Amino acid sequence: MAGSVYGTLFQIMTWGESHGKGIGVTVDGCPAGLPLSEEDIQQYLDRRKPGQSRFATKRQEGDRVEILSGIFEGKTTGTPIAMEIRNQDQRSRDYGNLMDVYRPGHADYTFDQKYGFRDYRGGGRSSGRETAGRVAGGAVAAKLLKTLGIQIRAYTRSVGEIQISPERFNLEEMWNNSLYMPDAEAARQAGEFLNQVMASKDSAGGVVECVITGLPAGIGEPVFDKLDAQLAKAVMSLGSVKGFEIGDGFLVSRSRGSLNNDGFRIGDKGQIIKSSNHAGGVLGGISDGDPVVFRAAIKPTPSIASLQHTVTREGKECDLEIKGRHDPIIVPRAVVVVEAMAALTTADLLLRSMSCRLDRIAGFFGREIGPQ
Amino acid sequence: MAGSVYGTLFQIMTWGESHGKGIGVTVDGCPAGLPLSEEDIQQYLDRRKPGQSRFATKRQEGDRVEILSGIFEGKTTGTPIAMEIRNQDQRSRDYGNLMDVYRPGHADYTFDQKYGFRDYRGGGRSSGRETAGRVAGGAVAAKLLKTLGIQIRAYTRSVGEIQISPERFNLEEMWNNSLYMPDAEAARQAGEFLNQVMASKDSAGGVVECVITGLPAGIGEPVFDKLDAQLAKAVMSLGSVKGFEIGDGFLVSRSRGSLNNDGFRIGDKGQIIKSSNHAGGVLGGISDGDPVVFRAAIKPTPSIASLQHTVTREGKECDLEIKGRHDPIIVPRAVVVVEAMAALTTADLLLRSMSCRLDRIAGFFGREIGPQ
Amino acid sequence: MAGSVYGTLFQIMTWGESHGKGIGVTVDGCPAGLPLSEEDIQQYLDRRKPGQSRFATKRQEGDRVEILSGIFEGKTTGTPIAMEIRNQDQRSRDYGNLMDVYRPGHADYTFDQKYGFRDYRGGGRSSGRETAGRVAGGAVAAKLLKTLGIQIRAYTRSVGEIQISPERFNLEEMWNNSLYMPDAEAARQAGEFLNQVMASKDSAGGVVECVITGLPAGIGEPVFDKLDAQLAKAVMSLGSVKGFEIGDGFLVSRSRGSLNNDGFRIGDKGQIIKSSNHAGGVLGGISDGDPVVFRAAIKPTPSIASLQHTVTREGKECDLEIKGRHDPIIVPRAVVVVEAMAALTTADLLLRSMSCRLDRIAGFFGREIGPQ
Amino acid sequence: MAGSVYGTLFQIMTWGESHGKGIGVTVDGCPAGLPLSEEDIQQYLDRRKPGQSRFATKRQEGDRVEILSGIFEGKTTGTPIAMEIRNQDQRSRDYGNLMDVYRPGHADYTFDQKYGFRDYRGGGRSSGRETAGRVAGGAVAAKLLKTLGIQIRAYTRSVGEIQISPERFNLEEMWNNSLYMPDAEAARQAGEFLNQVMASKDSAGGVVECVITGLPAGIGEPVFDKLDAQLAKAVMSLGSVKGFEIGDGFLVSRSRGSLNNDGFRIGDKGQIIKSSNHAGGVLGGISDGDPVVFRAAIKPTPSIASLQHTVTREGKECDLEIKGRHDPIIVPRAVVVVEAMAALTTADLLLRSMSCRLDRIAGFFGREIGPQ
Repeated sequence: MAGSVYGTLFQIMTWGESHGKGIGVTVDGCPAGLPLSEEDIQQYLDRRKPGQSRFATKRQEGDRVEILSGIFEGKTTGTPIAMEIRNQDQRSRDYGNLMDVYRPGHADYTFDQKYGFRDYRGGGRSSGRETAGRVAGGAVAAKLLKTLGIQIRAYTRSVGEIQISPERFNLEEMWNNSLYMPDAEAARQAGEFLNQVMASKDSAGGVVECVITGLPAGIGEPVFDKLDAQLAKAVMSLGSVKGFEIGDGFLVSRSRGSLNNDGFRIGDKGQIIKSSNHAGGVLGGISDGDPVVFRAAIKPTPSIASLQHTVTREGKECDLEIKGRHDPIIVPRAVVVVEAMAALTTADLLLRSMSCRLDRIAGFFGREIGPQ
Repeated sequence: MAGSVYGTLFQIMTWGESHGKGIGVTVDGCPAGLPLSEEDIQQYLDRRKPGQSRFATKRQEGDRVEILSGIFEGKTTGTPIAMEIRNQDQRSRDYGNLMDVYRPGHADYTFDQKYGFRDYRGGGRSSGRETAGRVAGGAVAAKLLKTLGIQIRAYTRSVGEIQISPERFNLEEMWNNSLYMPDAEAARQAGEFLNQVMASKDSAGGVVECVITGLPAGIGEPVFDKLDAQLAKAVMSLGSVKGFEIGDGFLVSRSRGSLNNDGFRIGDKGQIIKSSNHAGGVLGGISDGDPVVFRAAIKPTPSIASLQHTVTREGKECDLEIKGRHDPIIVPRAVVVVEAMAALTTADLLLRSMSCRLDRIAGFFGREIGPQ
Repeated sequence: MAGSVYGTLFQIMTWGESHGKGIGVTVDGCPAGLPLSEEDIQQYLDRRKPGQSRFATKRQEGDRVEILSGIFEGKTTGTPIAMEIRNQDQRSRDYGNLMDVYRPGHADYTFDQKYGFRDYRGGGRSSGRETAGRVAGGAVAAKLLKTLGIQIRAYTRSVGEIQISPERFNLEEMWNNSLYMPDAEAARQAGEFLNQVMASKDSAGGVVECVITGLPAGIGEPVFDKLDAQLAKAVMSLGSVKGFEIGDGFLVSRSRGSLNNDGFRIGDKGQIIKSSNHAGGVLGGISDGDPVVFRAAIKPTPSIASLQHTVTREGKECDLEIKGRHDPIIVPRAVVVVEAMAALTTADLLLRSMSCRLDRIAGFFGREIGPQ
Repeated sequence: MAGSVYGTLFQIMTWGESHGKGIGVTVDGCPAGLPLSEEDIQQYLDRRKPGQSRFATKRQEGDRVEILSGIFEGKTTGTPIAMEIRNQDQRSRDYGNLMDVYRPGHADYTFDQKYGFRDYRGGGRSSGRETAGRVAGGAVAAKLLKTLGIQIRAYTRSVGEIQISPERFNLEEMWNNSLYMPDAEAARQAGEFLNQVMASKDSAGGVVECVITGLPAGIGEPVFDKLDAQLAKAVMSLGSVKGFEIGDGFLVSRSRGSLNNDGFRIGDKGQIIKSSNHAGGVLGGISDGDPVVFRAAIKPTPSIASLQHTVTREGKECDLEIKGRHDPIIVPRAVVVVEAMAALTTADLLLRSMSCRLDRIAGFFGREIGPQ
């Protein structure tokens, strides 16, 4: 319980730091019988891989995943699925001038305060590289959900001030630009904006949006483990995320009850549906059958090329110039990480929801509900 | 693990529903030796009590807490502290016309989907009344923290479009108005605004802000159990909260790295401090010694007096008029609940942080670090 | 996580100490739809109530349970079931002469070492009275299991050297004697033996045996959360239990593989069955469909009337004579507590087992297993 | 929470099956600053390695551990320590004739019932090979404890009917025989006995005893997470263990209170000590400062060379002859596994005990206990 375990029934433990031997994750609680291959995982990892565009670092991480356990004859066995990605380049010389310095916007100072040492090799456990383990675990959860008809899709909603337009929204378009924006024109504008940001040795932030479809009503536990509360924790646990909102989010603070309430009505097939979805698919923390829609605010990359003022470990003020290439924006690489965290959270709460009604439990075990 | 337990070392389990026999909470893991009385708890409960102003419901709940265990000679014993608040008025006749109807913006529909029944008595477990248990538990956590020099203070930051002004900010002013706004002029304007809202049979939302001071650096676990991630879950687990942000929050998505990074410098006493606090007191999910500042977006009260369209449990469309008095705004009563959730989260992570360094553990147990 | 919470999906938190205001338990995770009344709980509590025979203390505890939440129209709602038993007699004057003394065989010394105080009122949280909360929670679990066709029955197997005989074994007989022995002759002998023990101001121990029938194969998680491992923890967490064994237990250490292995064969209905049950219904920690049989060794009551040597809190040696009536044997009252712990453990693992196979999950949610 | 995670603060997750790519474990929550090398782990693994004597299988597993994360400049960082042991020989041809057969005494049948498939390659996750991960994790816990002055030592107490003698007991002697018995003469007799067992194509069981010294008083949480309850779970979670007892164990059922109670007295240095240790170092589930002594009953190896009757997966009765070499006794290889589980349990409860007293917490954080 030192923070590297996530989930209750569908559970992962991640490990590894930047510039160590590798990164990995073990999944416990994945049901038996799910077809799963390294290729299923690799697809997800490739989406967070750097070096795909001019807005991402050119370091070639490779990131080939190996599955070490939990698969038998191509299917999951119900026992732990260990996965690892060996680092191909562990050289840390690029970080030499950072050895004793606390980088602004990074966790160097707080890790030193907590653990009593300074891992100068690029952030260690607090590096964004840590998220590779989440993505590998999330790929398993996503495959499980997809097999059950539940889809999770994240994309870039905004880069700086440039936001996708509802009119131009086209989900498939996200695969056509390196920013993963489902709006070609917004992506073009954002690309120009980022060129300016890079030219000024600076970095930019943005917003990732994520939509879960096909989720049955009834998922999420009341009180503390609400679906939206768990999603908030999942997404806020990414180092660069500073805000989370679901449905209309912060706008609700300026709305009215008469506008914000989603009325119910009867749909074409006689089913109960909501007339609108201001709630973002969640009522009282439990899914209502509508798409779950949430957003994460992501800060500008803290590693920037311009000069910054900071202090050394020994308590001397100094100026810092961070060398090497760094992404001017984290957002595009965060898209798949947000998707992974949503998948892990949804899979866990889906499984947890199975034990909430006696009649369904009796049906599951093929037992009559006996005399009381 | 059905969602009514919160925390790892400092842990609570809450119970109770609106219109049942009562509401309660049991705290496990509170250290022994903390002076604690029913009055300590009652102060917190009184702050969420309805009927304090014209913007809150006139039902008199009373809400007298009784401590049933875990105290010996005025101090905590280290064993569970059970607390309960008996409901004084369990009559449910006011809700008769809602028996078969799913109220918009409430969890009636999703609870029915999940559990297979409709508790028509005012929301049952999904009622805001559930939060009384959290507040009682949070009062214990807050007392523990205060004893160790850590203060948590929440207040109303905005009501609809009306926001407190940094220039007029005066924390003590919050006790002078029933909206708990630390700005007299904003409170006056918000009061007028709410009068209009009530006149139009509608409701309004707002934002609660919370500040934690005195927290040492090093609190929060890396990766999944970051301080901000846990706070996000804690606050998003309140039924009416639709957004959470820390530090500059959603604004970071439009900022630049050069502006958003908080540089370090050496303070007057030779200590390392940040020159600004865009991060909101958290770097890499671990407290940095600065105040932790976060906000929660709260939706308008879903129970409104104007006519709404909805469906019955049997799948017939109908119009609904909710009778009885309801708060036109949830925000003021949510202030103390946000404070309680922050206290529970902070106390838990504070205790969890004790086991992260060998040298400090050896010191704690009075043992030499032996030969390896 | 200070030790008063038990279970993962079917979860309880207990509270209360001897001579406080009361004892209680909250059950979270009980499925919705189970008919449940105070009478269901009271039946179990009455079985551990003292004062039923001449071998049990004459203090009248009363122990009337009140259900405070989680029930709606006679059925569980899926939300927490809070139960409490108010102590009717909180007077502590009987314990005056024990105020500063550490009683041998009790936890007075270790609680003081851990928490820094001495609750002289009869043991506080370490009192056997704590188990009332377990029994109330276990009664809910037992009712759930019974409704699904799973029965749990514990009884006294031995008192001192006197053991029930396989030839005379008659389960219903246990209700005819105050020792809960399913063998009338053994009960008669044990009664005589206990008369002698009491006459010599001493106490005796014994063994409780428990049998779980109707449990489907496949319950229990591999590796750490095996069915037998969880039962061991459950039973060893009772203060007076010093040993646990399943199936042939300690005898296996003297057996041979050819004798101890249970061969498989085909039963009358074509089903696979074991030819014997040395394993006690568990293979690799997972139920095999046979009855689960385990035993707990219970120590003699530590409170005895004869003179004992001990020390005071201030570190002075002294002689101690414990006044008042105490049970000369704990075993009969422990029977229902063992049953309760077995029910809690079994219910939890039953629910946890639901998420282990994809095909069954898809069936549960009524979804086709989609294209991969 | 599918059973491959153990511990609350000092936490491990294990993975891997026999005849897969490897076995591994990740440790989360080990404090920062502990010197740790692969050699520290390897020493423990070598003790469970097969092929060390004529009573252990001749398969050469090699079992070289590699540490993949969590170490920086030779010391733990406080973040996850991933360790893996690649299997050198994954060939499964030896198991061809077992493909469709349920082996008596193994978990083949129950795993198939639970997960719906038969991993015929030697047991898969239920193989004893799984314990290598526990041993690697336990080696880290043991090093942490040793550094703090706490020692854990397990050894073979009995093999079949042959038991070590208190008079001849010599702990260091255990390193001189392949059965790890701290009594040369008993080891000699046991060796002869095992030769006979092997000659008759059979197997034998035995008892492992474990002693924890140097543990401060106050470790263990009351009620459910008692030290002895957690040890019981830890040890009973080993597939071949059928019984657990602490202190006098099952003998207490035949003892008297006057004999079984351990009186207190004042020791040479004025400290409070027990005059005897029938309790095995635990009162009310909390360590009392005396050595913690417990035992585990281990069943005969289920894989035996003689003919056994069983069934196939398709439900046909058949005779089975298990080929290849198998240990005639599990006990010696279980010794280090019991030690590992005890170390994991003790380390976890030691860390958990740090948050139980306000005065000590205030001291830890260097804070005055403030005004209430």
